[in-house]
Amino acid sequence: MTNDPLPDGLTLRQKASLSSGASFWRTKTVAGLPAAILTDGPHGVRAQVGAEDHIGISPSAPATCFPPAAGLGQSWDPQLVERVGAALADEARANGAGVLLGPGVNIKRDPRAGRNFEYYSEDPHLSGVLGAAWVRGLQSHGVGASVKHFAANNAEHDRMRSDSQVDARALREIYLKSFERVVTESRPWTVMCSYNKVNGVYASENRWLLTEILRGQWGFDGAVVSDWGAVGDRVSAMAAGLDLAMPGGDLTLDETVVAAVEAGKLDEVTVDAAARNVLTMLQRIADGAASARPVDLDAHHALARQIAGRCIALLKNQDGLLPLDPSRALAVIGPFAVQPRYQGGGSSHVNAARLDIPLEQIRKQALGDVSYAPGFGVDGDADRLRDDAAAIAADADVAVMFLGLPDREESEGFDRGHIDLPEQQLNVLRAVVAVQPRTVVVLSHGGAVRLAEVDRLAQSILDGGLLGQAGGGAIADVLFGAVNPSGRLAETVPVRLEDVPSFLNFPGENSQVLYGESIYVGYRWYDARKIDVTYCFGHGLSYTTFSYGTVRAESDRDDLVVTLPVTNTGDRDGREIIQVYVSKPDSRVRRAPKELKAFQAIDLAAGATAEVTLRITRNDLAYWEERVDGWIVEGGAYTIHVGSSSKDIRGATVVDINGDTLTLPLTEDSTIAEVMAHSTAGPLFASLAAQNIAPVADALDNEFGVDIARVAASIPLGHIAAFGGGFSRETLDRFLEQVCE
Amino acid sequence: MTNDPLPDGLTLRQKASLSSGASFWRTKTVAGLPAAILTDGPHGVRAQVGAEDHIGISPSAPATCFPPAAGLGQSWDPQLVERVGAALADEARANGAGVLLGPGVNIKRDPRAGRNFEYYSEDPHLSGVLGAAWVRGLQSHGVGASVKHFAANNAEHDRMRSDSQVDARALREIYLKSFERVVTESRPWTVMCSYNKVNGVYASENRWLLTEILRGQWGFDGAVVSDWGAVGDRVSAMAAGLDLAMPGGDLTLDETVVAAVEAGKLDEVTVDAAARNVLTMLQRIADGAASARPVDLDAHHALARQIAGRCIALLKNQDGLLPLDPSRALAVIGPFAVQPRYQGGGSSHVNAARLDIPLEQIRKQALGDVSYAPGFGVDGDADRLRDDAAAIAADADVAVMFLGLPDREESEGFDRGHIDLPEQQLNVLRAVVAVQPRTVVVLSHGGAVRLAEVDRLAQSILDGGLLGQAGGGAIADVLFGAVNPSGRLAETVPVRLEDVPSFLNFPGENSQVLYGESIYVGYRWYDARKIDVTYCFGHGLSYTTFSYGTVRAESDRDDLVVTLPVTNTGDRDGREIIQVYVSKPDSRVRRAPKELKAFQAIDLAAGATAEVTLRITRNDLAYWEERVDGWIVEGGAYTIHVGSSSKDIRGATVVDINGDTLTLPLTEDSTIAEVMAHSTAGPLFASLAAQNIAPVADALDNEFGVDIARVAASIPLGHIAAFGGGFSRETLDRFLEQVCE
Repeated sequence: MTNDPLPDGLTLRQKASLSSGASFWRTKTVAGLPAAILTDGPHGVRAQVGAEDHIGISPSAPATCFPPAAGLGQSWDPQLVERVGAALADEARANGAGVLLGPGVNIKRDPRAGRNFEYYSEDPHLSGVLGAAWVRGLQSHGVGASVKHFAANNAEHDRMRSDSQVDARALREIYLKSFERVVTESRPWTVMCSYNKVNGVYASENRWLLTEILRGQWGFDGAVVSDWGAVGDRVSAMAAGLDLAMPGGDLTLDETVVAAVEAGKLDEVTVDAAARNVLTMLQRIADGAASARPVDLDAHHALARQIAGRCIALLKNQDGLLPLDPSRALAVIGPFAVQPRYQGGGSSHVNAARLDIPLEQIRKQALGDVSYAPGFGVDGDADRLRDDAAAIAADADVAVMFLGLPDREESEGFDRGHIDLPEQQLNVLRAVVAVQPRTVVVLSHGGAVRLAEVDRLAQSILDGGLLGQAGGGAIADVLFGAVNPSGRLAETVPVRLEDVPSFLNFPGENSQVLYGESIYVGYRWYDARKIDVTYCFGHGLSYTTFSYGTVRAESDRDDLVVTLPVTNTGDRDGREIIQVYVSKPDSRVRRAPKELKAFQAIDLAAGATAEVTLRITRNDLAYWEERVDGWIVEGGAYTIHVGSSSKDIRGATVVDINGDTLTLPLTEDSTIAEVMAHSTAGPLFASLAAQNIAPVADALDNEFGVDIARVAASIPLGHIAAFGGGFSRETLDRFLEQVCE
Repeated sequence: MTNDPLPDGLTLRQKASLSSGASFWRTKTVAGLPAAILTDGPHGVRAQVGAEDHIGISPSAPATCFPPAAGLGQSWDPQLVERVGAALADEARANGAGVLLGPGVNIKRDPRAGRNFEYYSEDPHLSGVLGAAWVRGLQSHGVGASVKHFAANNAEHDRMRSDSQVDARALREIYLKSFERVVTESRPWTVMCSYNKVNGVYASENRWLLTEILRGQWGFDGAVVSDWGAVGDRVSAMAAGLDLAMPGGDLTLDETVVAAVEAGKLDEVTVDAAARNVLTMLQRIADGAASARPVDLDAHHALARQIAGRCIALLKNQDGLLPLDPSRALAVIGPFAVQPRYQGGGSSHVNAARLDIPLEQIRKQALGDVSYAPGFGVDGDADRLRDDAAAIAADADVAVMFLGLPDREESEGFDRGHIDLPEQQLNVLRAVVAVQPRTVVVLSHGGAVRLAEVDRLAQSILDGGLLGQAGGGAIADVLFGAVNPSGRLAETVPVRLEDVPSFLNFPGENSQVLYGESIYVGYRWYDARKIDVTYCFGHGLSYTTFSYGTVRAESDRDDLVVTLPVTNTGDRDGREIIQVYVSKPDSRVRRAPKELKAFQAIDLAAGATAEVTLRITRNDLAYWEERVDGWIVEGGAYTIHVGSSSKDIRGATVVDINGDTLTLPLTEDSTIAEVMAHSTAGPLFASLAAQNIAPVADALDNEFGVDIARVAASIPLGHIAAFGGGFSRETLDRFLEQVCE
C-alpha cells in the first residue's frame, strides 16, 4: 500500500534529527519528503494561523466544530463517526495538515477527570468501536490519525509525572482494550504516547507499552508520536520505541541521541527503526494528499447538525411532554440558550466556523410565543434574574431550561473537584418548576454531573453532552420532534460523587494514582456493588417505543451471532440502539456482572419490525489470564443479555462456548489441591503422601475444630518439607522431575 | 535485663541448627540452655499432650479458654486484656511452654476473612493498644509473646502464596501500625512472620519487613519466628532476618544454611545474628521461669467470666427490655444456648477446662419459668422445630434467642463466602417475633454478620462475638443486669456485603490481593463514602446513660491532652468507653474523615461525674509521607471529636498543631508550581522564564479556552526543554545547580 522508505542514505545525525519536530507543529524536511504538519483535533481542526508560537496557543483558522467526544460518544453510531472522520480529514488537508491528533479513546475512569469531554465512554468496547470508526473515516480521506493518549491517562492532575498504578487485568481489559481495537482494526498511522507513567515508567519511555504490546502484540506499523512535551529523556524514549518527539525546536536534544549511539548506549538500529517509522508516516501523508476532497463548510455544518441530533439522549420524558407542540408558548431560560456551551478548553478548542444559537433555532421552529430570560449569569442580581425567569415560565405553556457546566470548569490541564451543577442554576430550576411543572431541561456539559435533583424536578430532560457548533439546531430538532432522539449515555450518572468507583483514589497523591477499583470501572462497579444510579450506562429514551422478540445466539465459526426481531410499537418513526451485554456466571476469575460486547442501531418506521443481527467475536469473550500472560476464552455457559440500556434488559439466552485450554505447569508453587487435581501427578502424589505424611490422613478426625484436609490443600509443594513431616525437599524434587517430564 | 548470649563457642553447623526447631513445638538444646516449647494461643494454651504428631493437631491439655480476640476486642479494655495475658502466662508455664503464640494484631480488612475471630479490630489503634496490653501481661509473668501474623495477612484463601499488594500509606498507617505499637511499647520476645507475600516478597524472606522496619525502625530486639511451615527457602529467609524456622524435624534444611555459608552465598555474620537472637529468646525463657505463678483454674474461670462480661456489646435495647426482670417467664431458643459457640477452629482451638452453659446460667439467675426449645438444628424437622420455638415464645413473657454462625463456618484455613446468618435461623426468628415482640437476640460469631433484619425484628440485641468458656455465665450476668454492658463493636456491621471496602478485591485471584481501598479500611471507608451501616464502629449501649461536658484539648510537650467531664445521668452504675477521633480538614494528603486516636473506659456510679483525661501522642498524629519515606505531623488545625461511638459524637474542639518541616529537594521532577512556591528558587526561575519563555506570559489571554498559567504550572522542569521554547537543558542544569547549593 505504501512504500517502505529506508533511511540507508542518511547519516546518523540526519536520522536522529528525524526523531523530533522542526517546530511546534511541523516535522523536518528530509529525504525528499515534504515536512508534515500535525495539528490538534479531534472534533475539529485547530490549525494555527500566522507565525507559530512555541506553545501552540495562538489563533487558529476557522473550522467546523463537530460534537466533541462527550457528545459523539452518545451517538453509539460508528457509521456517523466515520463520516465525521472523513469530513475532518478534508478540513485538515485544506489547512495543510497530514495528521490530525485524535481520536481520544481513554476510558472515563472518574467523572471529575478534566479531559473526559475529549473521550467517548467509560466502556472500552464502545470507546474502541467509535475510535476505530473515526480513524477509518479520517484515513480514508488521506489524513493520518494519532490515537491518544496512550495509555492509562485518566486524570489531568499532575499529569506530566503521575504514575498510573494499574493491575494487569484492568490494563488489558479496560484501559488498553479501546486502543487495541483501534490499532488492530483501523491501523492508525500514528499513536500518541501520554504524559503520565504507567506502573512506574513514563509512557514515553515504556518499552513494554510502545514496543512489546503496541508493535509486538497488536502489529502496529505506524509511528509513535509523543504528546507535546512528554519526552523528558530522548534516548530512553527512543530505546522504548518512541519515534517522534514533539514539538521540536531544540536541536541539542537530537544531539543527545547521536551522542548515545556514539557512546554505545543506544543501538543505531533503534535510530534506524524510528527514522523509518517517521519516513513511513511522511510517505503516507504525501500519498494521502490525493484522497483529499474540497471542503464545503456549509455541508459540514449540516453534517454537524445531523450528527449532533444523534448525540442527544432523552433521559426522561414524563407524560410525553416532548416533543413540544410548536404552537405552545415557550419560556426559554438560561444563558446557554444564547451563548451555547458546545466544546471544552485546551488543545482541542476549535475556532468554530459557524455557530447555531439554540434560542434562535427554537424560534425558527416554534409557532407560538418564545420568551427568554437568562435566569442566572455572572451579571445582575441573582434574585431578580431568578424571579424574572420564574415569571416568564409561569406565563408560558412550557419552560425549556438550559443548564450545564460553565466553560471555565472544563478544560485540559485540571480536573473538577466535584460533579455538581452550579447551585445557582439549581436554585433557578427550583423556582421555575415551582410555577411551571411542564419544564424541560437541556443539559450541556463535558463531564458527568449529578442529576438526582434535576431528575426529581424536571418533567423532561435532554442531555447533549457537548454538541459542537450545530448543537443549537439539533436541540431544536429534538425539542420539536424533527429528530426522534436516539442518543444513549456513554457514562453512568451516579447518585452521588461518593458512589464513584475511584472516589477515594482520584486524582491520587504524590504523583501516584492507585487504580484500586481494578476492572470495576463505570457500570461494572455499580452493577457489582449494587449501587443505585440516577441514569445507567446505555440509557436513552425515544418518542416511540420498541419491543424485543426472542433472542437467539449461535456460533458462526469462532464468533457468536446474536439475532432478534425488534418492533417499533409506537406511532412515530424512530431509531433504537440494541445493546448486548455478556455475563459469565461461575467464572474462574472476577468478572463484572455484565459487559457490553456488541451494539447495533436500527431505524424503524412506526409499526415496522426488523431482524437485528449482532456479532460478538471470540476475542471479545476472552479475559486476560495473568498466569499465562495472554487472552483466554473460558469454556462453559455464557448469558447473552439484550437490552435497551445496561439495566433495561429485554431478553436473554444462554450459550455454551468451547474454552481455550489453560495449562499451568506444576511447580513447587503448586498447591497440594492443584497437584491432586492433576490427572497423572495426582495419584502419584497421593501415594507419596501416604508413604511420607500418612499421619495427615489419620488425623482428619481430630479435636482441632477444623477440616484439616481443606487447610492442607492450600500448602504449596515447596513448603511441605518445612513442616518436617518426612516429605523432604529431595522427595519433592524427584516428584517434580517425574511429573514435569 | 537478660544476658546477651554469644554464639562464639559454637560451630557453624551448631549455629545453623539453631535456626529451626527440633520438632513441632520444641527448639533444640544448645549452649547449656534447655530447649524451649512454643505453643499455640492466643486465647488459651493449646499444649499438646502425649507424643507429638508432626502436624500439631493431637489432643491438648485442658486449659482456660478466655474470650477469643473477636470477643476481647469488644472490651476496649487494655487493663483487663493485660490480666488475661498474665493468666495465660501462668497456664503456659504450667504446661512447660516458654512462648505463647500470640497476640494476633492483624487488621480485619474484610468480614469474610476466616481468621478474623483471632484478631481484635478493623482499627490499628485499638488493635495495637490491646495487643500491647496482652504482651505486657504475658511477659510480666515470664512467658514470651509472638506477635503475629507479620504482616498484611488478611485472608486465609491461598494464604501460603498469596501476595498482599498494599501501598505504602496503607501499610504504614493501617497494616503495620498495630505491630509497630506492640513492638515499640511492649517489646515482645518474638514476632511471627506470616505465610503470605507482601508486595511480591514472602514475609519470611522480606528483609525490608523483618530487618529494615522491624529491627531498624522499631528497634525490635527479639527473635523472628516463622509461622509453622512458612519458610520455603531457609537461606533467603535467614538473609532477610528470620531467626527461627518452625517447626523442625528435617535436618537437611539446616544443612542448606551451612552450605550457603560455605559457598559464600550467605554471610556467617547473618547466621551468628540469628543464633544470637534464638539464644536470647532461650535465655529470656529460662530467666522467666522464676516469674511463673501457680495456676488456679477456678480463679481463671472466674476471671474469664468477668472478662467475657466486659466483651458483650448491647447493640439495641428498645423500651429498656433489658435487663430482664428475673420474675418474668422466659423462653430460651436456639442450640447455642445449650451447646455454646465460644471459640473458632484451627491452631487457636483450646481444650476448655470448664464450660458454662448459657441455659443453665440463665436458670440460675431467673426466678420465673425458663422454657427451652432448639428452634433449629441439624436434626429434626425444620418446621416442627420452628413451631415449637414459637409456641414456647408465645407462652413466655420474653424470648431470648441465641443466634450465630456455626462452628464449621469459622476456622483458620478458609474464608467465608458471605456474611449472612443461616437463613434457617432467621426463619425461626421471624416466627418467634411474630408471636412474641419482646424478643432478645444473643449473638455468637467470630466474623461480622449482616444484622439489618435482626435489627428490625428484635427488641434487644446482645453481641458477644466469641466469649470463651465462661461466656454462658457472662451472658446471664448481662441479661439480668448483674453486669451493665460496656462492650463496643471493634468492627463495623455493614448493611450489605456489597458495601464492604474490599468487596471486589477479596480474597484476590491468582495468588494476588490488591488492597485497592488503600487506607480506607472499616469505618474509614463507610465514613468517607457516606455509606449507611447497621451498627457503626465503637457502638455499644448501656443500661444507664452518660452525658459529656465541654471538651478541652491542650498540648503537653509533644502530646495532646484531651479532657472532659462525663456524667452518669441514669439510675444505675455503669461503664462508659470514651472515644477520641481526630480529623485533619484540608490535609495535604488523603485522610479518613476521622480516625480513632485514644479511648478510655470509666466506671461511674449512678449520678456521678468524673473528669476524663485522654492522651494522644504526637506520633499518633503523623501520616506516612511517601516522598520522604517517614512519618510527618502536618501543621495546622485538627478537630478532636469525642464520642460514645464513631458516629455518636458528643463534643469537639479544634487545636492547632505545629507541623514537622517537610523539605522536598528541587529536582528536574519538580513542577513549575513547586519551583515558583520556593522562597529563593521561585524568583530566580521567574526571571529565567521571562528571558526564555516570555511568550507563555504573553499568551495568557488567548483563544485556547483555558487558563494557560494553570496548565503550565504542572510541567516538571525536566520537560520544559522538550517544548522547544528556548529554555534548554543547559539552562535547567545551571538553574538546578544554583538552587541546590
